[in-house]
Amino acid sequence: MAEKKSQKSNVVLRAQLRLMLGDEIAFGPGKADLLDAIRETGSISGAGKKMGMSYRRAWLLVDSMNRCFLEPLVDAAKGGANGGGTQLTDLGEKVLRDYRVLQQEIANITDKHFENLKPLLRDSPLSSEK
Amino acid sequence: MAEKKSQKSNVVLRAQLRLMLGDEIAFGPGKADLLDAIRETGSISGAGKKMGMSYRRAWLLVDSMNRCFLEPLVDAAKGGANGGGTQLTDLGEKVLRDYRVLQQEIANITDKHFENLKPLLRDSPLSSEK
Repeated sequence: MAEKKSQKSNVVLRAQLRLMLGDEIAFGPGKADLLDAIRETGSISGAGKKMGMSYRRAWLLVDSMNRCFLEPLVDAAKGGANGGGTQLTDLGEKVLRDYRVLQQEIANITDKHFENLKPLLRDSPLSSEK
Repeated sequence: MAEKKSQKSNVVLRAQLRLMLGDEIAFGPGKADLLDAIRETGSISGAGKKMGMSYRRAWLLVDSMNRCFLEPLVDAAKGGANGGGTQLTDLGEKVLRDYRVLQQEIANITDKHFENLKPLLRDSPLSSEK
Protein backbone atom coordinates (compact mmCIF):
# COMPACT_ATOMS: atom_id res chain seq x y z
CA MET A 1 0.00 0.00 0.00
CA ALA A 2 1.41 3.36 -0.99
CA GLU A 3 0.58 5.96 1.60
CA LYS A 4 1.38 9.64 1.81
CA LYS A 5 0.72 11.38 5.08
CA SER A 6 0.38 15.14 5.27
CA GLN A 7 1.41 17.50 8.01
CA LYS A 8 -2.21 17.21 8.95
CA SER A 9 -1.20 13.77 10.18
CA ASN A 10 -4.73 12.39 9.91
CA VAL A 11 -4.89 12.94 6.14
CA VAL A 12 -3.67 10.08 3.94
CA LEU A 13 -3.88 9.37 0.22
CA ARG A 14 -3.82 5.60 0.00
CA ALA A 15 -3.33 3.60 -3.18
CA GLN A 16 -4.13 -0.04 -2.64
CA LEU A 17 -2.91 -2.34 -5.40
CA ARG A 18 -4.53 -5.73 -5.76
CA LEU A 19 -3.91 -8.35 -8.39
CA MET A 20 -7.18 -10.28 -8.60
CA LEU A 21 -7.65 -13.77 -10.02
CA GLY A 22 -11.41 -14.12 -10.12
CA ASP A 23 -12.61 -13.38 -6.60
CA GLU A 24 -9.25 -14.24 -5.04
CA ILE A 25 -6.61 -11.64 -4.20
CA ALA A 26 -3.59 -13.25 -5.87
CA PHE A 27 -1.32 -10.49 -4.58
CA GLY A 28 -1.78 -7.32 -2.59
CA PRO A 29 -0.28 -5.19 0.19
CA GLY A 30 -0.73 -7.77 2.98
CA LYS A 31 0.76 -10.57 0.93
CA ALA A 32 3.71 -8.41 -0.11
CA ASP A 33 4.45 -7.56 3.53
CA LEU A 34 4.15 -11.25 4.43
CA LEU A 35 6.74 -12.20 1.80
CA ASP A 36 9.10 -9.58 3.20
CA ALA A 37 8.57 -11.01 6.67
CA ILE A 38 9.14 -14.60 5.48
CA ARG A 39 12.38 -13.56 3.86
CA GLU A 40 13.43 -11.85 7.07
CA THR A 41 12.40 -14.55 9.56
CA GLY A 42 12.85 -17.70 7.43
CA SER A 43 9.53 -19.15 8.52
CA ILE A 44 5.80 -18.72 8.08
CA SER A 45 5.20 -18.77 11.83
CA GLY A 46 7.91 -16.16 12.45
CA ALA A 47 6.53 -13.98 9.68
CA GLY A 48 3.01 -14.27 11.07
CA LYS A 49 4.23 -13.34 14.54
CA LYS A 50 6.08 -10.30 13.18
CA MET A 51 2.87 -9.18 11.49
CA GLY A 52 0.62 -9.89 14.44
CA MET A 53 -1.34 -12.65 12.76
CA SER A 54 -1.91 -16.30 13.62
CA TYR A 55 0.10 -19.06 12.00
CA ARG A 56 -3.09 -20.28 10.36
CA ARG A 57 -3.82 -16.87 8.83
CA ALA A 58 -0.24 -16.53 7.52
CA TRP A 59 -0.36 -20.09 6.14
CA LEU A 60 -3.66 -19.39 4.35
CA LEU A 61 -2.20 -16.28 2.71
CA VAL A 62 0.84 -18.23 1.52
CA ASP A 63 -1.40 -21.04 0.27
CA SER A 64 -3.55 -18.52 -1.61
CA MET A 65 -0.55 -17.02 -3.41
CA ASN A 66 0.85 -20.45 -4.23
CA ARG A 67 -2.51 -21.55 -5.70
CA CYS A 68 -2.90 -18.44 -7.89
CA PHE A 69 0.48 -18.34 -9.61
CA LEU A 70 1.85 -20.84 -12.11
CA GLU A 71 4.53 -21.81 -9.59
CA PRO A 72 4.68 -21.31 -5.81
CA LEU A 73 5.98 -17.99 -4.47
CA VAL A 74 7.01 -19.58 -1.18
CA ASP A 75 8.84 -22.87 -0.76
CA ALA A 76 8.35 -24.33 2.70
CA ALA A 77 10.20 -27.52 1.73
CA LYS A 78 13.66 -25.99 1.53
CA GLY A 79 14.07 -26.39 5.28
CA GLY A 80 14.90 -29.77 6.77
CA ALA A 81 17.94 -30.77 8.77
CA ASN A 82 20.41 -28.47 7.05
CA GLY A 83 17.91 -26.11 5.48
CA GLY A 84 17.54 -22.43 5.87
CA GLY A 85 13.84 -22.71 6.64
CA THR A 86 11.10 -21.33 4.47
CA GLN A 87 12.25 -19.26 1.51
CA LEU A 88 10.83 -17.26 -1.35
CA THR A 89 11.17 -18.97 -4.71
CA ASP A 90 12.71 -17.14 -7.66
CA LEU A 91 9.16 -16.35 -8.78
CA GLY A 92 8.30 -15.10 -5.31
CA GLU A 93 11.29 -12.75 -5.37
CA LYS A 94 10.34 -11.50 -8.83
CA VAL A 95 6.67 -10.85 -8.02
CA LEU A 96 7.56 -9.07 -4.79
CA ARG A 97 10.16 -6.93 -6.55
CA ASP A 98 7.77 -5.99 -9.39
CA TYR A 99 5.04 -5.12 -6.90
CA ARG A 100 7.35 -2.87 -4.85
CA VAL A 101 8.55 -1.07 -7.98
CA LEU A 102 4.93 -0.51 -9.04
CA GLN A 103 4.06 0.78 -5.55
CA GLN A 104 6.95 3.23 -5.68
CA GLU A 105 6.02 4.53 -9.13
CA ILE A 106 2.46 5.07 -7.94
CA ALA A 107 3.66 6.77 -4.76
CA ASN A 108 5.64 9.23 -6.86
CA ILE A 109 2.44 10.18 -8.70
CA THR A 110 0.15 10.30 -5.68
CA ASP A 111 2.64 12.51 -3.81
CA LYS A 112 2.22 15.23 -6.42
CA HIS A 113 -1.57 15.10 -6.41
CA PHE A 114 -1.70 14.85 -2.63
CA GLU A 115 -0.09 18.28 -2.35
CA ASN A 116 -3.05 19.69 -4.29
CA LEU A 117 -5.80 17.78 -2.50
CA LYS A 118 -4.66 18.06 1.09
CA PRO A 119 -5.27 21.82 1.53
CA LEU A 120 -8.90 21.29 0.47
CA LEU A 121 -9.68 19.09 3.48
CA ARG A 122 -10.69 20.04 6.99
CA ASP A 123 -8.58 19.06 9.99
CA SER A 124 -11.24 16.51 10.84
CA PRO A 125 -14.73 15.73 9.48
CA LEU A 126 -17.62 17.87 10.67
CA SER A 127 -20.10 15.93 12.78
CA SER A 128 -22.89 14.27 10.87
CA GLU A 129 -26.32 15.86 11.23
CA LYS A 130 -27.97 12.44 11.35
CA MET B 1 -10.80 2.56 -9.27
CA ALA B 2 -8.32 1.92 -12.05
CA GLU B 3 -8.75 -1.56 -13.43
CA LYS B 4 -6.95 -3.40 -16.16
CA LYS B 5 -8.45 -6.64 -17.37
CA SER B 6 -6.39 -9.19 -19.25
CA GLN B 7 -7.41 -11.53 -22.03
CA LYS B 8 -7.70 -13.96 -19.17
CA SER B 9 -10.84 -12.02 -18.34
CA ASN B 10 -10.76 -13.06 -14.69
CA VAL B 11 -7.41 -11.39 -14.03
CA VAL B 12 -7.50 -7.76 -12.91
CA LEU B 13 -4.91 -5.37 -11.50
CA ARG B 14 -6.91 -2.99 -9.37
CA ALA B 15 -5.61 0.26 -7.94
CA GLN B 16 -7.99 1.68 -5.37
CA LEU B 17 -7.34 5.29 -4.44
CA ARG B 18 -8.70 6.59 -1.18
CA LEU B 19 -8.24 9.99 0.38
CA MET B 20 -8.61 9.36 4.11
CA LEU B 21 -9.42 11.98 6.75
CA GLY B 22 -8.87 10.08 9.98
CA ASP B 23 -11.04 6.98 9.73
CA GLU B 24 -13.37 8.54 7.17
CA ILE B 25 -13.00 8.05 3.41
CA ALA B 26 -13.14 11.68 2.28
CA PHE B 27 -12.98 10.61 -1.37
CA GLY B 28 -12.65 7.34 -3.22
CA PRO B 29 -13.90 5.37 -6.24
CA GLY B 30 -17.53 5.10 -5.08
CA LYS B 31 -17.79 8.78 -4.24
CA ALA B 32 -16.23 9.77 -7.56
CA ASP B 33 -18.77 7.65 -9.45
CA LEU B 34 -21.56 9.16 -7.37
CA LEU B 35 -20.47 12.70 -8.29
CA ASP B 36 -20.50 11.71 -11.97
CA ALA B 37 -24.02 10.32 -11.53
CA ILE B 38 -25.23 13.45 -9.72
CA ARG B 39 -23.90 15.61 -12.51
CA GLU B 40 -25.67 13.39 -15.03
CA THR B 41 -29.03 13.03 -13.27
CA GLY B 42 -29.23 16.35 -11.40
CA SER B 43 -30.36 14.69 -8.18
CA ILE B 44 -29.09 12.54 -5.34
CA SER B 45 -32.01 10.13 -5.67
CA GLY B 46 -31.48 9.78 -9.44
CA ALA B 47 -27.76 9.24 -8.92
CA GLY B 48 -28.41 6.62 -6.26
CA LYS B 49 -30.86 4.81 -8.54
CA LYS B 50 -28.35 4.83 -11.39
CA MET B 51 -25.77 3.25 -9.08
CA GLY B 52 -28.16 0.75 -7.56
CA MET B 53 -28.05 2.21 -4.07
CA SER B 54 -30.74 3.56 -1.78
CA TYR B 55 -31.39 7.28 -1.47
CA ARG B 56 -30.23 7.07 2.13
CA ARG B 57 -26.90 5.47 1.14
CA ALA B 58 -26.31 8.08 -1.59
CA TRP B 59 -27.23 10.89 0.78
CA LEU B 60 -24.82 9.59 3.43
CA LEU B 61 -21.97 9.49 0.90
CA VAL B 62 -22.69 13.07 -0.15
CA ASP B 63 -22.92 14.15 3.47
CA SER B 64 -19.60 12.45 4.21
CA MET B 65 -17.81 14.31 1.40
CA ASN B 66 -19.38 17.61 2.37
CA ARG B 67 -18.25 17.16 6.00
CA CYS B 68 -14.65 16.31 5.08
CA PHE B 69 -13.82 19.15 2.71
CA LEU B 70 -13.52 22.83 3.58
CA GLU B 71 -16.57 23.54 1.41
CA PRO B 72 -19.31 21.21 0.16
CA LEU B 73 -18.69 19.24 -3.04
CA VAL B 74 -22.42 18.93 -3.72
CA ASP B 75 -24.97 21.72 -3.45
CA ALA B 76 -28.49 20.39 -3.04
CA ALA B 77 -29.86 23.91 -2.54
CA LYS B 78 -29.43 25.10 -6.11
CA GLY B 79 -32.74 23.49 -7.05
CA GLY B 80 -36.00 25.20 -6.21
CA ALA B 81 -38.72 26.40 -8.55
CA ASN B 82 -36.43 27.37 -11.40
CA GLY B 83 -33.42 25.38 -10.31
CA GLY B 84 -31.53 22.73 -12.18
CA GLY B 85 -31.65 20.37 -9.25
CA THR B 86 -28.65 19.17 -7.31
CA GLN B 87 -25.29 20.26 -8.70
CA LEU B 88 -21.62 19.85 -8.04
CA THR B 89 -19.98 22.93 -6.59
CA ASP B 90 -16.84 24.37 -8.17
CA LEU B 91 -14.86 22.49 -5.52
CA GLY B 92 -16.75 19.29 -6.33
CA GLU B 93 -15.87 19.66 -10.00
CA LYS B 94 -12.23 20.31 -9.15
CA VAL B 95 -11.84 17.36 -6.76
CA LEU B 96 -13.57 14.99 -9.20
CA ARG B 97 -11.37 16.19 -12.06
CA ASP B 98 -8.15 15.85 -10.04
CA TYR B 99 -9.15 12.36 -8.92
CA ARG B 100 -9.90 11.21 -12.47
CA VAL B 101 -6.57 12.57 -13.72
CA LEU B 102 -4.76 10.75 -10.92
CA GLN B 103 -6.65 7.53 -11.72
CA GLN B 104 -5.64 7.80 -15.37
CA GLU B 105 -1.99 8.42 -14.57
CA ILE B 106 -1.99 5.39 -12.29
CA ALA B 107 -3.76 3.28 -14.92
CA ASN B 108 -1.01 4.13 -17.41
CA ILE B 109 1.56 2.75 -14.97
CA THR B 110 -0.37 -0.32 -13.89
CA ASP B 111 -1.03 -1.25 -17.53
CA LYS B 112 2.69 -1.67 -18.13
CA HIS B 113 3.27 -3.77 -15.03
CA PHE B 114 0.14 -5.81 -15.64
CA GLU B 115 1.59 -7.07 -18.90
CA ASN B 116 4.49 -8.54 -16.91
CA LEU B 117 2.45 -9.98 -14.06
CA LYS B 118 -0.47 -11.51 -15.92
CA PRO B 119 1.45 -14.34 -17.65
CA LEU B 120 2.64 -15.52 -14.22
CA LEU B 121 -0.89 -16.35 -13.05
CA ARG B 122 -2.97 -19.46 -13.57
CA ASP B 123 -6.31 -19.31 -15.38
CA SER B 124 -7.99 -19.82 -12.02
CA PRO B 125 -6.72 -20.59 -8.51
CA LEU B 126 -5.95 -24.22 -7.67
CA SER B 127 -8.31 -25.66 -5.10
CA SER B 128 -7.25 -25.20 -1.52
CA GLU B 129 -6.04 -28.33 0.26
CA LYS B 130 -7.81 -27.31 3.43
